[in-house]
Amino acid sequence: MKKLNETIKKITRINHKIIEVTQLRLDNLTKPLGSLGRLEELAKQIVGITGKHSPDLKNKVIFTLAADHGVTEEGVSAYPKEVTPQMVYNFLRGGAGINVLAKHVGAKVIVVDIGVAEDLKPDSRLTIKKINYGTKNMAKGAAMTREEAVKAIETGIDLFNDELENGIDIVGTGEMGIGNTTAASAITASFTKRPVEEITGRGTGLDDKGLNSKISIIKKSLSVNNPDPTDAIDVLSKVGGFEIGGLAGIILAAAANKVPVVIDGFISGAAALIAYQIEPLVKDYMIAAHCSVETGHKVILGHIGLKPLLDLNLRLGEGTGAALGIGLADAAIKILTGMATFKSAAVSQKG
Amino acid sequence: MKKLNETIKKITRINHKIIEVTQLRLDNLTKPLGSLGRLEELAKQIVGITGKHSPDLKNKVIFTLAADHGVTEEGVSAYPKEVTPQMVYNFLRGGAGINVLAKHVGAKVIVVDIGVAEDLKPDSRLTIKKINYGTKNMAKGAAMTREEAVKAIETGIDLFNDELENGIDIVGTGEMGIGNTTAASAITASFTKRPVEEITGRGTGLDDKGLNSKISIIKKSLSVNNPDPTDAIDVLSKVGGFEIGGLAGIILAAAANKVPVVIDGFISGAAALIAYQIEPLVKDYMIAAHCSVETGHKVILGHIGLKPLLDLNLRLGEGTGAALGIGLADAAIKILTGMATFKSAAVSQKG
Repeated sequence: MKKLNETIKKITRINHKIIEVTQLRLDNLTKPLGSLGRLEELAKQIVGITGKHSPDLKNKVIFTLAADHGVTEEGVSAYPKEVTPQMVYNFLRGGAGINVLAKHVGAKVIVVDIGVAEDLKPDSRLTIKKINYGTKNMAKGAAMTREEAVKAIETGIDLFNDELENGIDIVGTGEMGIGNTTAASAITASFTKRPVEEITGRGTGLDDKGLNSKISIIKKSLSVNNPDPTDAIDVLSKVGGFEIGGLAGIILAAAANKVPVVIDGFISGAAALIAYQIEPLVKDYMIAAHCSVETGHKVILGHIGLKPLLDLNLRLGEGTGAALGIGLADAAIKILTGMATFKSAAVSQKG
Repeated sequence: MKKLNETIKKITRINHKIIEVTQLRLDNLTKPLGSLGRLEELAKQIVGITGKHSPDLKNKVIFTLAADHGVTEEGVSAYPKEVTPQMVYNFLRGGAGINVLAKHVGAKVIVVDIGVAEDLKPDSRLTIKKINYGTKNMAKGAAMTREEAVKAIETGIDLFNDELENGIDIVGTGEMGIGNTTAASAITASFTKRPVEEITGRGTGLDDKGLNSKISIIKKSLSVNNPDPTDAIDVLSKVGGFEIGGLAGIILAAAANKVPVVIDGFISGAAALIAYQIEPLVKDYMIAAHCSVETGHKVILGHIGLKPLLDLNLRLGEGTGAALGIGLADAAIKILTGMATFKSAAVSQKG
């Protein structure tokens, strides 16, 4: 807990004074006042987070954390759990959606085994931080021990801090884990108290029967474990996943280090809920990349109070939406730093 | 009219057969079926437009057409009309929003004087295709002659065809012209028959009084000119603008040449309405980049049947939203062409 507590202690309010200065600066650029809408808001937020008048978003990093979920033995996913390690290899070879979209926006992908159910072949491009060989089946008991939950979060903090030595100007969250929308729904239900039916979706593609069964399993898991929503570690340990804990740690570490963190979809949203319950100040460091097809995601965004940038019917995860969000953040900062002012361009102002 | 008629004749349905093949291809990529949502739809649309299985979006071009509007003498804009030429110089120096965002997505900006009210200083980076020194005041009579309206559209066709020799894989529409939201509202009212109040916004930043006055001027212009909505050239000549006609020509030429055309905001939308009225088949060649703050834009998108990609409260014009849309189109094609298949990556399929 020491590392987690130290990280929490470092999280402060974002710098609102510098945001006011940035507003004046944006208003002097050659465009009607506020006409770049959310790009301007995004630029201000990033300035407020970093405390830098002209932030440089050179080092873009997306963490894609992979882990397995014991609850898959209840048949909650349309895909077999072997897909988790198979997709990790795909990430390493560069063939997945996240590889393509991260490259598109100039982001580095850091692939982490934080709890895949089998030993992966050693690969210099793979970071191994395995906490256990997948979680336990939460329909029968806690998904992990409390110690493992803390370790998952602190592993996320370590991942962030280690990469920070290479430079992180903006970070995106991503994950892979067959069964993890089930965990994300259970976490969402715990914190938001919304009915399980309302916050459970088809994941990778369940049919109606599969969806109903998934809802039952989530209800059972919540009743078996009775997670305490005032204790994020308890929720994570009872119905969470290692990748979700790791991402919560990355979010906390980003805030502690004044780095904007772009939240991907539903599973990343569940991690954001955990980080937000631990320290509500993290909210202002978060940029919600998009609104997922998974119905629970909208509930999460509403609960924290985040407005997604994109709504493109994405539901892939991996950090794909975060990559697109990072692209927009990049555009926003370029607007702030690259445009001429009315004065420098000799353009007349509003009459 | 000959050039326009020849262009219209070249416009055919997009290739639906190749879209079916592309659907199968997308379904074999290592992601749950359809999980990249609108990116997948976008990839299919671009394949259908180009007729190429793996389109290359190397040459990205945004046309930013500048022109003045006689109706500004009625005080319909928050900015003085001198801003039109001033912003053209800003475009040429690279200091405007469109310069920054086009560079962000790797697009070339072609700046055109199609009807600025003064002679601009010669500049090798400026394309001069001036039809007249701004339109006439539409509150008192037709904005331009019918011949000028045809010439504006055919100038757009020429602009496209000339640049096509350098290669255009995807094109975006952009404009600059103090007073042009007034023209766009009048065009929108003509075609959609919606009340002027509903489709008129604050443009670059009118207050309530200014907005009411703008609405009156638009109503007056419509009653003075009585544009015929079954005749797009009539509407353009009565209440349009040279840049709007030019963009309609670019849209038609793009469709005629099987090039996807990314429509920017409200003024570009008015151009899209004209192109759509001339030849409804252009619809499938259009990609609506975003939904503008200008209320009339949503009405236009609904009328044509386009679903915007982004909703970022933009209202700058110039092609800024189109630039972001081009970035997403690029991402979509990279997904189609860059991802591994289940087979090539040895990933198990849905159970």
